[in-house]
Amino acid sequence: MFRTLLTAAAVSALLTGTAFAQDAKTASALRDKALRDYTAWDITEDLTTSIGPRLVGSPAMERAKDWGVAKFKALGFTNIKVEEFAKPSWTRGEESAELVAPYPMKLGIVGLGRTVPTAPEGVEAEVALFKTFADMVAAPEGALKGKIVVITQPMVRTQEGTGYGVAGISRRAGPTEAAKRGAVGVLIRSISTSDSTVPHTGVTAFGDTVATIPSAAIGVPEAEQLERLAAKGPLRIKLKLASTVDANDVAWNISGEIKGSEKPDEVIVIGGHLDSWDVGTGALDDATGIAITTAAAKLIGDLPKHPKRTIRVVMWGSEESGGSSEAYLEAHKAEVPKIVLAGESDSGADRIFALKLPAGAGAHPLMQTAAGVLAPLKIYVDREPSTHGGADISGLESAGVPSISLEQDASRYFDYHHTADDTLNKVRPDELAQNVAAWASFLYLVADSDIDFRALKAAAPAATH
Amino acid sequence: MFRTLLTAAAVSALLTGTAFAQDAKTASALRDKALRDYTAWDITEDLTTSIGPRLVGSPAMERAKDWGVAKFKALGFTNIKVEEFAKPSWTRGEESAELVAPYPMKLGIVGLGRTVPTAPEGVEAEVALFKTFADMVAAPEGALKGKIVVITQPMVRTQEGTGYGVAGISRRAGPTEAAKRGAVGVLIRSISTSDSTVPHTGVTAFGDTVATIPSAAIGVPEAEQLERLAAKGPLRIKLKLASTVDANDVAWNISGEIKGSEKPDEVIVIGGHLDSWDVGTGALDDATGIAITTAAAKLIGDLPKHPKRTIRVVMWGSEESGGSSEAYLEAHKAEVPKIVLAGESDSGADRIFALKLPAGAGAHPLMQTAAGVLAPLKIYVDREPSTHGGADISGLESAGVPSISLEQDASRYFDYHHTADDTLNKVRPDELAQNVAAWASFLYLVADSDIDFRALKAAAPAATH
Repeated sequence: MFRTLLTAAAVSALLTGTAFAQDAKTASALRDKALRDYTAWDITEDLTTSIGPRLVGSPAMERAKDWGVAKFKALGFTNIKVEEFAKPSWTRGEESAELVAPYPMKLGIVGLGRTVPTAPEGVEAEVALFKTFADMVAAPEGALKGKIVVITQPMVRTQEGTGYGVAGISRRAGPTEAAKRGAVGVLIRSISTSDSTVPHTGVTAFGDTVATIPSAAIGVPEAEQLERLAAKGPLRIKLKLASTVDANDVAWNISGEIKGSEKPDEVIVIGGHLDSWDVGTGALDDATGIAITTAAAKLIGDLPKHPKRTIRVVMWGSEESGGSSEAYLEAHKAEVPKIVLAGESDSGADRIFALKLPAGAGAHPLMQTAAGVLAPLKIYVDREPSTHGGADISGLESAGVPSISLEQDASRYFDYHHTADDTLNKVRPDELAQNVAAWASFLYLVADSDIDFRALKAAAPAATH
Repeated sequence: MFRTLLTAAAVSALLTGTAFAQDAKTASALRDKALRDYTAWDITEDLTTSIGPRLVGSPAMERAKDWGVAKFKALGFTNIKVEEFAKPSWTRGEESAELVAPYPMKLGIVGLGRTVPTAPEGVEAEVALFKTFADMVAAPEGALKGKIVVITQPMVRTQEGTGYGVAGISRRAGPTEAAKRGAVGVLIRSISTSDSTVPHTGVTAFGDTVATIPSAAIGVPEAEQLERLAAKGPLRIKLKLASTVDANDVAWNISGEIKGSEKPDEVIVIGGHLDSWDVGTGALDDATGIAITTAAAKLIGDLPKHPKRTIRVVMWGSEESGGSSEAYLEAHKAEVPKIVLAGESDSGADRIFALKLPAGAGAHPLMQTAAGVLAPLKIYVDREPSTHGGADISGLESAGVPSISLEQDASRYFDYHHTADDTLNKVRPDELAQNVAAWASFLYLVADSDIDFRALKAAAPAATH
């Protein structure tokens, strides 16, 4: 009687589910072990302390490369590789800004990543202040000519970090759009959810073919101060930015593997990025991503028997300045059909609240099993498929590799992102461990299975929205 | 029957209480008006925006003096005075610090207030790191010789801000005690309750007769980073501090009055300090103290009839670097017997939770009335008497002037204190208004009374603890 009430599909799921009982047990044990494991904390502590900030092209980044290789070895990874690629580097010099009128006041700044420098004596000009990027673009012809543009658009705090893309346009396109209109410099309100004076850097448009101008970020209170002062009368600001570039520099993607026991040529690619900005110590961005994925794979590697498929952890070498994703795809083109899944951890270390799967995978019995294993960690499986698993796997994604996204709570992430305050004391050990528990248990299930995400996607009905 | 159950004292209190019924009504109306009044917000906004940071001896401080006079005039104060006193000034120059070994890393610093400078080329030395001030003092003979001392003692967060005095010894005495032991420079963990990289300044021991060495503060994450690195091996740091002094500079205490209607020569002296550190805009320290006391007096001044006694608001001119309290006492020695009460607002702008009265005053019927007026603001009258009402009234206190203390919640205050983050966006308008409501209603009751705090203290039994 009981069984007749079930649909054929559900019966199939239950029967198949039984087939995963042993895997679910192993995955659950991994999960619970991870919650009390300090491997990820130790990796984060060591990378941020022993190496510190690690900008692409810096001596620290070269030390970080050696650190990555040594860490993989120490944790039992095999097939360790260092894949070099060309990456022009940029090095920050002395930076300063000062309000000149209506009265002199120093402004704490940080140059935007890869900004062009000012002349050595700096640039001083009247201010054209806009409360949004759109206001600047809509300004009348000539309004920006010879001015230092200040854009004070704020960022909205959300759990998924969705305010970043919207507010970030000031940083990404502010300098190029202001340059087109004749401005001589740009200061943006930091792309930040905090109320802090600490300014946020991050890459702006750059390159040989990009026409741009010197650009920097100011803290939130300074942006609000300039807004209030601009309402009272004209402002003048002096800005000095120094930097150097090396067009012939290189970067490295570093990887290590937990070799599959039955189908070692089928590979799951996960990781974080090893490079960071030169302010802070790149703790949340992205030492913890390195730590979470490395620790998860290491816990799986410690099992009496490795799962069927290979798990490869990649420490991508140039996320902040771009390039590691393209370089990784280029170096692994031939292997793409055998990469069964990709994922990246790069939104800090606060707790994961949702798993986004490749399209069409949600109904698969293994994924139902995964949902059950993740539920005690307070993680649900989102109905929306993963569309973008991380900047460093976007190359693989574009080549058709299915990806997942373990969504971290980003409410707090953009308080510290790209600042001198991205430091170890912002990492919460218990939430870091919850991340490792999710990655380890989910990865194990996929690695010990035959699930084919590409086939599931091909069979899925088209999205109705 | 009812009355016979009361003691004679209580009956007396109730009868006298009736005498205060009209005053209680006026005080309650003032309280409720203040909760919706934006005078204090506007003063805070104007001082922090139009003047900005205002270090003693700076051009900004001179503008602040003129601002204070203009503000008193605009708000209807009378008998406005500018009292000049001698105050040697100190001006910060360029400052930098760098970890040299085990690897190069910039350290954000702020020189301690009135520190001596380094030689122009800076000072570089091996580090002697101590986790507490006491550890440094206990170090073996010679351990500090030629070293840069780093003290990483943390500050404890408490509602009353009591962690400040304990941790502050690193700043106050660290440089002089390290100098005695042969050190060449000092870096302290900021005296801070935050987890931020933004360093906290504040005055250290200085003067012609003080032997000291160049000293600065580092942020909390940097202090923790140095602790971790010191556990792994030796550190070297390079420190550069520039500053200039002007031994012949001056400062000003500025005051304005709401003249008493019946006993104008009896004076209540309240206020905040107009000077600030040169980082941030001195919003919580102490634009809001100026704003709270000025707005409270202004609301009283707007009444159809002024209370009997005079209320004088003083904008003290050199709290951070010391001197305004002594100068105020010196200038008002002859008037001291007529100063019936003193109070200062100088712990930010978060809500007041307690009132501390002069010893012996708690049982007075007027103070019982005051307790009733303050209760709806969630303020209780503390059983402990006020022993220290503020740095700028300590001179008056030493001369026997009774003082009160309206205790602000300082849980958050030392996150921002003496930093670039002490800015307007840390002020919460509703809590600022609660402060004004408390000051206005309490002041009115005392100003419209004959209460003699000196006599009450003389009659009080000696404290039993």
